[in-house]
Amino acid sequence: MIFLDAAATTPVRREVLEAMWPYLSGEFGNPSSHHSLGEAAATALAEARSAVAKVLNCRAGEVTFTSGGTEADNLAVKGIALARHAVDPSLNRVVISAIEHPAVEESARYLERVHGFTVDVVPVDRDGLVTVDALRAVLRPETAMVSIMYANNEIGTVQPVADLAAVAHGFGIPFHTDAVQAAGWLSLDVKALGVDALSISGHKLGAPKGSGVLFTKGRTRVEPLVHGGGQERGKRSGTENVAGAVALSTALTLSLGEQPELASRVSGLRERFVSHILQTVPGAILTGHRSQRLPSIASFCFPGTSGESVLLELERLGVVCSSGSACAAGSDAPSPVLLALGIVPEIAQTAVRFSFASTVTEAELEQAAGAVEAAVGRVRNLASPQHN
Amino acid sequence: MIFLDAAATTPVRREVLEAMWPYLSGEFGNPSSHHSLGEAAATALAEARSAVAKVLNCRAGEVTFTSGGTEADNLAVKGIALARHAVDPSLNRVVISAIEHPAVEESARYLERVHGFTVDVVPVDRDGLVTVDALRAVLRPETAMVSIMYANNEIGTVQPVADLAAVAHGFGIPFHTDAVQAAGWLSLDVKALGVDALSISGHKLGAPKGSGVLFTKGRTRVEPLVHGGGQERGKRSGTENVAGAVALSTALTLSLGEQPELASRVSGLRERFVSHILQTVPGAILTGHRSQRLPSIASFCFPGTSGESVLLELERLGVVCSSGSACAAGSDAPSPVLLALGIVPEIAQTAVRFSFASTVTEAELEQAAGAVEAAVGRVRNLASPQHN
Repeated sequence: MIFLDAAATTPVRREVLEAMWPYLSGEFGNPSSHHSLGEAAATALAEARSAVAKVLNCRAGEVTFTSGGTEADNLAVKGIALARHAVDPSLNRVVISAIEHPAVEESARYLERVHGFTVDVVPVDRDGLVTVDALRAVLRPETAMVSIMYANNEIGTVQPVADLAAVAHGFGIPFHTDAVQAAGWLSLDVKALGVDALSISGHKLGAPKGSGVLFTKGRTRVEPLVHGGGQERGKRSGTENVAGAVALSTALTLSLGEQPELASRVSGLRERFVSHILQTVPGAILTGHRSQRLPSIASFCFPGTSGESVLLELERLGVVCSSGSACAAGSDAPSPVLLALGIVPEIAQTAVRFSFASTVTEAELEQAAGAVEAAVGRVRNLASPQHN
Repeated sequence: MIFLDAAATTPVRREVLEAMWPYLSGEFGNPSSHHSLGEAAATALAEARSAVAKVLNCRAGEVTFTSGGTEADNLAVKGIALARHAVDPSLNRVVISAIEHPAVEESARYLERVHGFTVDVVPVDRDGLVTVDALRAVLRPETAMVSIMYANNEIGTVQPVADLAAVAHGFGIPFHTDAVQAAGWLSLDVKALGVDALSISGHKLGAPKGSGVLFTKGRTRVEPLVHGGGQERGKRSGTENVAGAVALSTALTLSLGEQPELASRVSGLRERFVSHILQTVPGAILTGHRSQRLPSIASFCFPGTSGESVLLELERLGVVCSSGSACAAGSDAPSPVLLALGIVPEIAQTAVRFSFASTVTEAELEQAAGAVEAAVGRVRNLASPQHN
C-alpha cells in the first residue's frame, strides 16, 4: 500500500514511541503530585514544554498543551475573542478566512451563535491566497481577533502569515494561525511569523492522536475552554497527558532537525508528481497555488469523474489518498474550500488530494502517478461507456 | 515504594497497553478517513464505544469520548446548562454540591462569570453527604441542571446518587454525576443510578492520561466545548484519540469483571488500615463517612501536624500518598472539601489521604500503617520538642 493521506494522520514515529513509552509505564505520576513520582512527571512535562518552545522560538510559559489541534484552534479563537470581549464588550467581531478548517470556522460560528459576535470572512483568490488588501478591508475597530491558517489542509496553499499578522497588528488586533498542516514542513518560528497564537496537532507529524499545542504570546489573555484544577497556568485544566506532551515535543524537535532538507526533497518529488499527473491525465486541474504550497500536498480536480470513485479505484490499485479533509470524507458535497476558490460544484466534487509523509519516495510517487492515470481513465470510461 | 496515591493517578495496566498498542503503531488510521486504514480505526473506535456502553448499561450513541475527566465534567455542566438556556433563557441557575471537584465547580463559576448564571451550592453534612432534603431545598424553576459527584476524591464519601437524581427529576431537571473516582470501584450502571450524564477519567483506572468519557442520556442536548469537524456525533470535535478510547474501554471492561470482589477485598483492607491508624495514632480523625465511602480511600486529619510535613516524612519511609487532591498539592491552604464538612482550618491543613490501587496488599497497608504512626509521631515531636 502506498499511503498518500498523511494530511489526515500519520503513524507514530519510532523515536516518538520510545520517548513517550516511560510515561505510559513506570513513570506514571501526576505532574501535580508533590512526591517523587509526581515530580518526575512534572519534570518530563517541563522538558517537553521547553523543547516545544525551542522549536517555536518562544518561552516555555507561552506553550499550552492541549488534546489536539482542534482544541488548540477552539482555545485560540474563542479564548482570545472572549477574553478581549470581557474587557471591552465593543469587541464583538472575529475575522477568519474563507478556507479555514472547521475547527476555526465552527469556533467563530459558536461566538456568533452563543455570544452574539459577527463573523467577517476574508475571501481568498483563485489560488487560495488571502491578500493583505483583502484582510485590511474587513478589519474593524470591533474586531477582537483574526484567525487565518498557515497552510490549507485541502489544497496546501501557504498564506503570507507574517504580512497578514502585520496588517492585523497595525489595527492592534491579535492574530492566530492554525499551523496544523504546516507543522513538520515549514518554520514554526513564531517571532518570524509575528503571530500571537499558533496551533499544532501531534498526530499530523508523527506523534499520537490526542496531543496538541497552542502557543499564545506573552500576556495574551485567553478564556479557557476547560476549567478546573488550573493546570497549564490556568489556560487548560485537567491532568496533563504527559506521554502525549513528550511525544509531541519529540516529534517537533525531530522535524526541526530535518528541515529544510526534508521540505526541499519532498517539494521536488511533489513537483515531479504534479507534472506527471498534469501530463498524463487529460484535463487534470491542480488546485491551490502553483508554488506557494506545502511540500506535502498535491491536490487536483479530475473533470468527468467523481472524486469518491477515483479514490475507490486508487485503493484497488494500492494507493490510499482522500478527496479532501478527513473530516468531510465520504461526503459527496463539494468542498467549501474549493468553492471558495471559485471552482464550480461539478468540478469541485471531482477533487482528489495526495498528501505525503516525510518518508515518501520517488518510486512510490511514480507508481502512484501511474495508478492515478489508470484510475481516472477507468472512472471516465465507466461514466461514459459510449466513448470507449 | 508503597504507592498509596491512586486517586491522583494509576499506572497503565498491562492488558490496557497491549490493547491500545496497535493504534499507536500499525493501525494508525484517522477514523474519519474512508479507506481501509481509516475504516479499521473507525471499527476500533466503535468497538471501544460499545464496550464502554456495556459497562455503563447504555447505548453506544450515548458515549462521548473526551480528553479526560475534567473535559467530561466541563462538557456536562456547561454543555447541558447552555443547551437548555438556549432553548429557555429563564433556565439560568445550576446546582452543585459544596464538595465538587474543581472541574465541576469552575465550570459552574464560568457559567456565572461569562453567562450570568447563578450557582446554587448544596451543603453537605459532617460526613460529606448531600441529603435529598438539602438538594430539594435549593432547586428552583430556573435550575438548568444539577451536578453532584458520585464519590469524593478527598474523603471518599459516596453520595446517594440514585435518590438525588430522582429528586432532580421530580422537578424535570437533568442530573450529572462526576464518577471519576467511583469508576473502577462502584457500579457505573447509569440506569440504576438514574443519571442523565456521568463523567469518567481513564487515568484513574489503569488507562492513560488524556482519555475520558461523558455519558449523556438519550436526547440530552449538549452545547459542545470543542467545535469543528463534527466527530463524536457533533458533541466533541477533533480527530478521535483511538488508542485512548480503546485503552479506556479495556480498563473499564476489566474493572467491571473484577467487581464486586475487588471492592469487597479492598474495603476490608481499608477497614483494617483505618482501625490500625485510629488505634495507633493518638488524636487521628477519619474524614468522610465511616461506611458510605469508596473502598479505596482512607483519609485522616492528624491534629498537631501539618499534612505536608507528614507526607514528606512518609515518603522518606517509603510511603507515597497526598494531602488531598493532586490539583491542590503543595498548597498549605486548607481543603475546601474539609472546610465544607465543618472541620476548622487548623485541623483541615493536617489532612493526609491514602488511596489504594486495585493491586494493594495487606502487607503493604500494614507497613504503611506503621509508617504513618512513626511519621505523625516524628512531626509532632519536631513541632513540640519540649514534649520529648
